[in-house]
Amino acid sequence: MRRFLLAAVLAAAATPAFADEPIVLRGMGSFHVGGRVVEVSGKPVKEVVFSPGGVPAKLDPNGLYQVEGMYAQYFLPQNRKGKYPLLMWHGGGLTGVTYETTPDGREGWLNMFVRKGWDVYVSDAVERGRSGFASPDIWQGQPNFLTKAGPFERFRIGDGPGSWNADPAKMKVLPGNQFPVEAYDNFMKQNVPRWTTTDTAIIAAYTALVDKVCPCVLLVHSQAGGFGFKVAQARPDKIKGIVAVEPAVAGDKAQAANLKNIPTLVVYGDYIATDSRWPKMRQIGLDYADAVRAAGGKVDVVNLPDVGIKGNSHMLMMDKNNKAVADLIGDWLARQGLTE
Amino acid sequence: MRRFLLAAVLAAAATPAFADEPIVLRGMGSFHVGGRVVEVSGKPVKEVVFSPGGVPAKLDPNGLYQVEGMYAQYFLPQNRKGKYPLLMWHGGGLTGVTYETTPDGREGWLNMFVRKGWDVYVSDAVERGRSGFASPDIWQGQPNFLTKAGPFERFRIGDGPGSWNADPAKMKVLPGNQFPVEAYDNFMKQNVPRWTTTDTAIIAAYTALVDKVCPCVLLVHSQAGGFGFKVAQARPDKIKGIVAVEPAVAGDKAQAANLKNIPTLVVYGDYIATDSRWPKMRQIGLDYADAVRAAGGKVDVVNLPDVGIKGNSHMLMMDKNNKAVADLIGDWLARQGLTE
Repeated sequence: MRRFLLAAVLAAAATPAFADEPIVLRGMGSFHVGGRVVEVSGKPVKEVVFSPGGVPAKLDPNGLYQVEGMYAQYFLPQNRKGKYPLLMWHGGGLTGVTYETTPDGREGWLNMFVRKGWDVYVSDAVERGRSGFASPDIWQGQPNFLTKAGPFERFRIGDGPGSWNADPAKMKVLPGNQFPVEAYDNFMKQNVPRWTTTDTAIIAAYTALVDKVCPCVLLVHSQAGGFGFKVAQARPDKIKGIVAVEPAVAGDKAQAANLKNIPTLVVYGDYIATDSRWPKMRQIGLDYADAVRAAGGKVDVVNLPDVGIKGNSHMLMMDKNNKAVADLIGDWLARQGLTE
Repeated sequence: MRRFLLAAVLAAAATPAFADEPIVLRGMGSFHVGGRVVEVSGKPVKEVVFSPGGVPAKLDPNGLYQVEGMYAQYFLPQNRKGKYPLLMWHGGGLTGVTYETTPDGREGWLNMFVRKGWDVYVSDAVERGRSGFASPDIWQGQPNFLTKAGPFERFRIGDGPGSWNADPAKMKVLPGNQFPVEAYDNFMKQNVPRWTTTDTAIIAAYTALVDKVCPCVLLVHSQAGGFGFKVAQARPDKIKGIVAVEPAVAGDKAQAANLKNIPTLVVYGDYIATDSRWPKMRQIGLDYADAVRAAGGKVDVVNLPDVGIKGNSHMLMMDKNNKAVADLIGDWLARQGLTE
């Protein structure tokens, strides 16, 4: 396995840059799936001027609300090579923007996998981005907001707590880090508020997405590791492969056998051993992988520094070597017979 | 092999079919612009488990926040014919999804104008969608949430107040309406909460977008009419044309002369005369058009029923005849010398 991966990395390095080639699509678009209708009653009617200078409208908050739907955008290459759609699910506090352009303006994994011939579906989890969120009359709990220091110190860009500084010259970036630190503020603009009480709604919506567009391959990151494994456990016949990129959460070990026919790749970046939280988070993923293997499943785990890909933060799809990681994943998918 | 073929057929059935020619792009991607950094202080540190089963993290809400940035996604056709980028700005309570696929799965104006050869930039206003929103520590005011009845009755889909009903058989749809009523629930899934206190931040971010990608042409809808005219007044040299689709708000009449060199088209749909609010809202647009003309500017106003395009709701870009309206706009842009 390791020998193959090394060969794949070397082959990828020899692949010519393709960013100048046009992207030819047989279709692109978006849709919403899932959600439910909830009734709110007993609230007073308001009069709202939606825009200064506009005409007042009566806003009756009582009635039926369409909530917890989920947005997905798709890009279908003309020269299709992936046997199934590839669904990209983002991590916590983020949206599908994770997979588009990098914060410093290079192509993201969406473009790269479309160029490889995959039908790609990028979604925003319930509550995030274009999926919207429900009112406090409907949802318990409050959203959390992240300071500029938060992801810098937790996503292995900086060297842990205290490493972020408003003065870039005083930031303690991990040595050799591949994250485009100069564009960190753009990354923070991508961050959106996140609830911690919406997992059930998010999993229901991802399941609705799978029911609509699968059989498919899942590519999940961070928080979406948990969503991906759990939805795969619920719909094992519809998931033909899973790529879990630094899953922060795993599935239910008691149901690990449900994944025994789904080839799975788990990828971790650099600096994990010396981080305050990531050794434990990686162990959660490794334990789950062991449970799937014990049930007869196939899980490949790649720690990128072991195959010569060094310096990756938690945001591997944005790192300066994001193409090398995409190529490793693309080659693994091909080896599973998921391309034609 | 046979099993794979069956799976491939099923997968193909789940993906939308497009009869048109492929879309050939020389590039696509996204970015965020604008915003500001705000400090929050004096709040207690929390411990948060972001995902059930995850590892607890300390969340210090004190610090610097990157807020009020704005998301934009772009599609650049290989066969470029528009002289300038075309920026599509959505209306209130909505996001850039407005311009993508229609609620019933047909192509939206994004695809149509890319196919016409326009570089298209679709954005989410500050607070909406992938732009995110700021915490109550930073923003005054609360978001508003719309019931399923709201847009149906205000957007000239149904016949005014009381026309929506949970039972589709009891809905009072305006006769001949072109909105895809059977997919109305999908449209409601596109709706996101909206504040009424964020206009200054939204205009600042749109101005930042114009400063980044223009000279350009603006295509604005409903609430964004006000944003478009105001940003054009502030950056008249950068705006080469304006298409205002049912603007709910106009610019500042005292600054109307700033638009005198910008060819402008204002488009209205059907059923306006008999609506409870739209005659007044249309008059706001007509009065502003008169002010621009009085200053020497050129504003064409098209009431679609007058040119034989009938049945349009407020969401013209989603209506079943959305291509006829796109073609009218495209032809107008060509007549202004904005294509090559």
